[in-house]
Amino acid sequence: MTDMWEISSVEFNKDNIPWYGNKFLIGNGYFGIRGTMEEYTKEQMCAVNMAGIYDRVGDAWRESVNAPNVLYTYIKADGAVYALPDTEPAEHIQSLDFRHGIHLRRTVWQTPKGKITLECERFASMERQHIVGLRCTVSADYDCDFEIVTGIDGDVWDINGPHFAKLDISCEDGVKSVVGTTGEKGVTVSAAEYIRFDFDADKSCDITDKAALSHICFRAGAGKAYTVEKIAEIYSSADTLERSGDIKSLTYDEAKAESVAAWEKIQEISEVVIEGDDEAAKALNYSLYHLNCIAPRNMRSMSIPARGLSGQVYKGAVFWDTEMFMIDYFIYTDPEVAKTLIRYRIDTLGGARKKAAEYGLNGAYYAWESQEGGIEGCSDYNVVDVFTKRPMRTHFRDKQYHVSAAVVYAIMKYIDASGDYSILEEGAAEVAVECARMYRSLLIKKADSDKYEIHDVVGPDEYHERVNNNAYTNRMAKFVFEKTVQLLGVLKDKYPDCYAELDEKYELDRLYAVFADSAEHMYVPEPNPETGLIEQFDGYFKLEDASVDEVRSRLLDEKEYWGGAYGVASDTQVLKQADVVAMLSMFKNDYSTDIMRKNWNYYEPRTEHGSSLSACMYSLLSCYIGDPDSAYPLFMKSASADLLPGSKQWAGLIYIGGTHPASEGGAWIVATLGFAGISAENGRLVSRPALPSKWKAMRFKLRFGGKLYSVNIEGNNSVIEEIK
Amino acid sequence: MTDMWEISSVEFNKDNIPWYGNKFLIGNGYFGIRGTMEEYTKEQMCAVNMAGIYDRVGDAWRESVNAPNVLYTYIKADGAVYALPDTEPAEHIQSLDFRHGIHLRRTVWQTPKGKITLECERFASMERQHIVGLRCTVSADYDCDFEIVTGIDGDVWDINGPHFAKLDISCEDGVKSVVGTTGEKGVTVSAAEYIRFDFDADKSCDITDKAALSHICFRAGAGKAYTVEKIAEIYSSADTLERSGDIKSLTYDEAKAESVAAWEKIQEISEVVIEGDDEAAKALNYSLYHLNCIAPRNMRSMSIPARGLSGQVYKGAVFWDTEMFMIDYFIYTDPEVAKTLIRYRIDTLGGARKKAAEYGLNGAYYAWESQEGGIEGCSDYNVVDVFTKRPMRTHFRDKQYHVSAAVVYAIMKYIDASGDYSILEEGAAEVAVECARMYRSLLIKKADSDKYEIHDVVGPDEYHERVNNNAYTNRMAKFVFEKTVQLLGVLKDKYPDCYAELDEKYELDRLYAVFADSAEHMYVPEPNPETGLIEQFDGYFKLEDASVDEVRSRLLDEKEYWGGAYGVASDTQVLKQADVVAMLSMFKNDYSTDIMRKNWNYYEPRTEHGSSLSACMYSLLSCYIGDPDSAYPLFMKSASADLLPGSKQWAGLIYIGGTHPASEGGAWIVATLGFAGISAENGRLVSRPALPSKWKAMRFKLRFGGKLYSVNIEGNNSVIEEIK
Repeated sequence: MTDMWEISSVEFNKDNIPWYGNKFLIGNGYFGIRGTMEEYTKEQMCAVNMAGIYDRVGDAWRESVNAPNVLYTYIKADGAVYALPDTEPAEHIQSLDFRHGIHLRRTVWQTPKGKITLECERFASMERQHIVGLRCTVSADYDCDFEIVTGIDGDVWDINGPHFAKLDISCEDGVKSVVGTTGEKGVTVSAAEYIRFDFDADKSCDITDKAALSHICFRAGAGKAYTVEKIAEIYSSADTLERSGDIKSLTYDEAKAESVAAWEKIQEISEVVIEGDDEAAKALNYSLYHLNCIAPRNMRSMSIPARGLSGQVYKGAVFWDTEMFMIDYFIYTDPEVAKTLIRYRIDTLGGARKKAAEYGLNGAYYAWESQEGGIEGCSDYNVVDVFTKRPMRTHFRDKQYHVSAAVVYAIMKYIDASGDYSILEEGAAEVAVECARMYRSLLIKKADSDKYEIHDVVGPDEYHERVNNNAYTNRMAKFVFEKTVQLLGVLKDKYPDCYAELDEKYELDRLYAVFADSAEHMYVPEPNPETGLIEQFDGYFKLEDASVDEVRSRLLDEKEYWGGAYGVASDTQVLKQADVVAMLSMFKNDYSTDIMRKNWNYYEPRTEHGSSLSACMYSLLSCYIGDPDSAYPLFMKSASADLLPGSKQWAGLIYIGGTHPASEGGAWIVATLGFAGISAENGRLVSRPALPSKWKAMRFKLRFGGKLYSVNIEGNNSVIEEIK
Repeated sequence: MTDMWEISSVEFNKDNIPWYGNKFLIGNGYFGIRGTMEEYTKEQMCAVNMAGIYDRVGDAWRESVNAPNVLYTYIKADGAVYALPDTEPAEHIQSLDFRHGIHLRRTVWQTPKGKITLECERFASMERQHIVGLRCTVSADYDCDFEIVTGIDGDVWDINGPHFAKLDISCEDGVKSVVGTTGEKGVTVSAAEYIRFDFDADKSCDITDKAALSHICFRAGAGKAYTVEKIAEIYSSADTLERSGDIKSLTYDEAKAESVAAWEKIQEISEVVIEGDDEAAKALNYSLYHLNCIAPRNMRSMSIPARGLSGQVYKGAVFWDTEMFMIDYFIYTDPEVAKTLIRYRIDTLGGARKKAAEYGLNGAYYAWESQEGGIEGCSDYNVVDVFTKRPMRTHFRDKQYHVSAAVVYAIMKYIDASGDYSILEEGAAEVAVECARMYRSLLIKKADSDKYEIHDVVGPDEYHERVNNNAYTNRMAKFVFEKTVQLLGVLKDKYPDCYAELDEKYELDRLYAVFADSAEHMYVPEPNPETGLIEQFDGYFKLEDASVDEVRSRLLDEKEYWGGAYGVASDTQVLKQADVVAMLSMFKNDYSTDIMRKNWNYYEPRTEHGSSLSACMYSLLSCYIGDPDSAYPLFMKSASADLLPGSKQWAGLIYIGGTHPASEGGAWIVATLGFAGISAENGRLVSRPALPSKWKAMRFKLRFGGKLYSVNIEGNNSVIEEIK
């Protein structure tokens, strides 16, 4: 079974450095550490990426901040440096135990005199989220003078940095420390470490401009192993976690054992067993590993960026991805994390109000790329034109109104599965009201119509900007109106004080009528009576019906952006990602299987799947249509987004590599809500499975209504049992 | 005084060939003949450009058709060809008598033996609009063997041709004939000619693939002149003019005398005398010459393309230019021509209805680039990207709704000045109703507003696409609603049968209420109470306030388009042409001088004047503000658009050279309605002059209410007298 929880690479290839940084990532929700080698620097996109801390330098985009690198380590043998990627190794293995978050590398170099070996194991503690452990062992097959250089590198990788306006570096009582202070807000990000070893060596500490380094020099006997252990801690003045204790008293083995135990506790509930398809099981559990690496545990209010904690890609910002694709897994396995994610949106309501006001709208318009406090990280110019190198005016920021609906959608999903309405009192009710008010201010009526329309939007398919009556957006607006009306009823009943407070602020009776009117008269494109097709937006079917391959062939530059005003896809029916299909899978009870099938069949061949959010939505709808074997390859695509090469690296001239947690969350959704057919009916968990052909059985656990259940599926039979 | 009516060039410069083709144009409204040399071919953009005949080849843009070139003539001396531009001349003069439309060229070449001279005079008959006259005289200062080759060249210049799918060429009884038949619709464009001369020569006729040519060979005595005269006629199967009689019986001198007389009759009313500023007088009368060259005389229904009859530029299509800038001159000097222009819009109502339906709108949405029958010549891709060479999606065609309002505006101008309501019965009332219905279907209301707005438009300033509540467009929509209500009242009163017919079709009582409601609740951006500024569209003032020079400096390529989604002007306040200022000058009675001045001062420095329609609008508003000296340079810019070099030749990679009749019409508007302060008050002509400083006096004639008036202005005194 070890192999089911381990990924590894046994060759060294420089070209894989950026991708392996994502693939071999470790993390604990407080930070993510890219799967780069210990001796790597910013040149190799090395990063300890912090959750929820952002900074801006000059006019560049705001982005998340990377902590000083506490893993930094390299070795010298007989005075010569042996370090990747410059010194070609004789052997090299990199592996990850993704059941427990343990990263290992073992590299052998040929020296003039023989072979030397460096082996490093590391983990980000899941028990104490400030803590990182690193254990390095060196050996040689001949007598050799080794020097191990290890410490904290403050010269971190930045896309739009440098973010540390100041670095304070010290070495006292064996504790090295590098404290960076950000320029914009003066947030400190601190790293400290303590090392131990039990062999004779000369040890000195070296403070440079940007680093604090220990030098451990010793004479090594042939064939003998020498181990240095490091316990490091990372913390910040923006912290929401308590400090983790004394790094001088904690041993590597203790810390590792604790962390493994914490991971094991998570895996007990997280693991999905699939009999008959090890590849799928491995990909899915690997995906869930990534979600757990970046889940904000032990924090009151925090969210997950679209690229997780794999770097500053997408500015480290939080997108609708979290609410649409990631939160489901947490709702059903660790509702406290889901609540933390929702609280992030409650706590950033101020930012969303500010953004709405900026556009002359009422209520709350959440940031498309949300940073701390709900600051909008998205620029009006979010893509660079490959031909002119000019920033291109894009409309992600100003027209992608559906982001606010996603927040309400997540709140509803949480409440429906947890039965925990307390979130309403905590602020979720007001979030819903404010989102509904925003949508209300988008509504227009044509002079001689009684239907409300929404014009000039960007739907999930971002390749088509500034469209009218995007089916998805309009349906989501209707959903927000309906649900807000419903939630206000619950609030009045369960939390009368909170209701009264909101009533004073908003005159809820009046709003109730306004929202009911909005829901009733909302125009949502309907299936065409002849074809069953729902038009993605007004005029979509009139666009050129070119194939994805044909459209791709029109690219003059492979990095060229497909969308915008003049992109190769813009005037065609080719879409970036599920749009109508997303709507159908979210509102499956409103549409017949026939309608779902017809739309799936129409839209899928026209979809580039240029977003990692796309495949899982198509896959889910395939499950709802009752066609798990069509769903399967798309499920595998979602589950393997970070496991296999090939993910999109560029949008225009903007680097968009990194991990794909939405895709990973989407894979879990397909597995459980899709293949296992989990749904809540009348407050009870129900499973109507339709497994892919080669899946013999499927077992997993779910939390629902405050209880834990096991789900055991064998073929078409499903048994759901409460675990006491 | 001759000089006042003559322009000439005494040097030969190849670079001027395209421009001189426009500058020295002759025409009579049935066709325009570019001011190119007789020996030129399509390589030198030689064209006999036909009014109202269009053709499409393949997927290329539809464009107007050029007739076979009846001027084609070159000479040989002692066997060698002497022809521009290849044979450098010793002397060369090209001149135009623009009082009478007589074009002259005289070229001297140095041969090995001495000098030879070619002199050609030509005219497009203003009396018989099918007829062209050409007289060529050759001489040499030594005894010489001359050959004059003259005939009809069917190998015409085309931008998106060739348009003649078939050429029938013949030479019978001394009459040469070339008949081209267009590929799309099978329209024939025929040219025939007959030549005379009274000296001894060998004469033969040569029929080639694309031409019919006479060869006249003779021995010339030193110092003796030999003259060949040609009468040619041009006609078409799409004709709206009667044939002109027998080309064999008409002599050059007769035909010339007739045409000169017809021109003189026009000039008697057209001429504007300006004392103290010959330069302005010449430029203005030269402008009016151009308008007369392209005025559709003796035709029931026809309009004027935006580049006149100077070629296939802008597809030979009719724009709002005619209604906004050209028609005023005709309304006041030759109302029959104005009526012909309006009938064109009446007769193309079907095309406008079709276009409206195409966009899901009611009523009539006139073509942005109107061709025969109201066919929309404008493509969705009207500019070519200089960087990718791809056609760019533009919104001239689909979003420039203000074109329909311009048609109604012209109808009102015509009625107000002529007192002739019969046009209503002829169809103008229905045009107004259909335009109003179109605007009604554009109106939207925000859910909690009682104002009608119009979103997603392109205003006169085309650099800013897809804007909301463009002040100009909204004001014009209101105008259309108001005037249609008013016209329906007149129609009911004066033409009850016509009213009854429309009533049956449209339920006019209901429409009356609908239009009144629309006018009443129409949102038109108002002057800001603090600044007096009217925002061009929602959010305009939030755009970057960069100077025109700054914006220009950002061009990476001089041919790059300034507008569209990513143009250098698009996200700045820099505008292409008068927009708010156009509205203010059109609705001057609605705004105080102070508001007009403040907006002029704000918008003028931000205006690129990238359209020839811009300067005259600014100039006119300056007059209304009472500042004729600020108006003057912009007036001169308008009046000199084709007289001086420097007009815009490119929009992206699309050639847009040609004459600028809107600018010329605009110059007349500024001179008469602006400087002379002409307006109609209570059905009477009034003049409140404010002349530019150096203008001592101004005299011109106007038709008004069916009568002819002289206007005599000396300083601030103006006398208007009816001419019996």
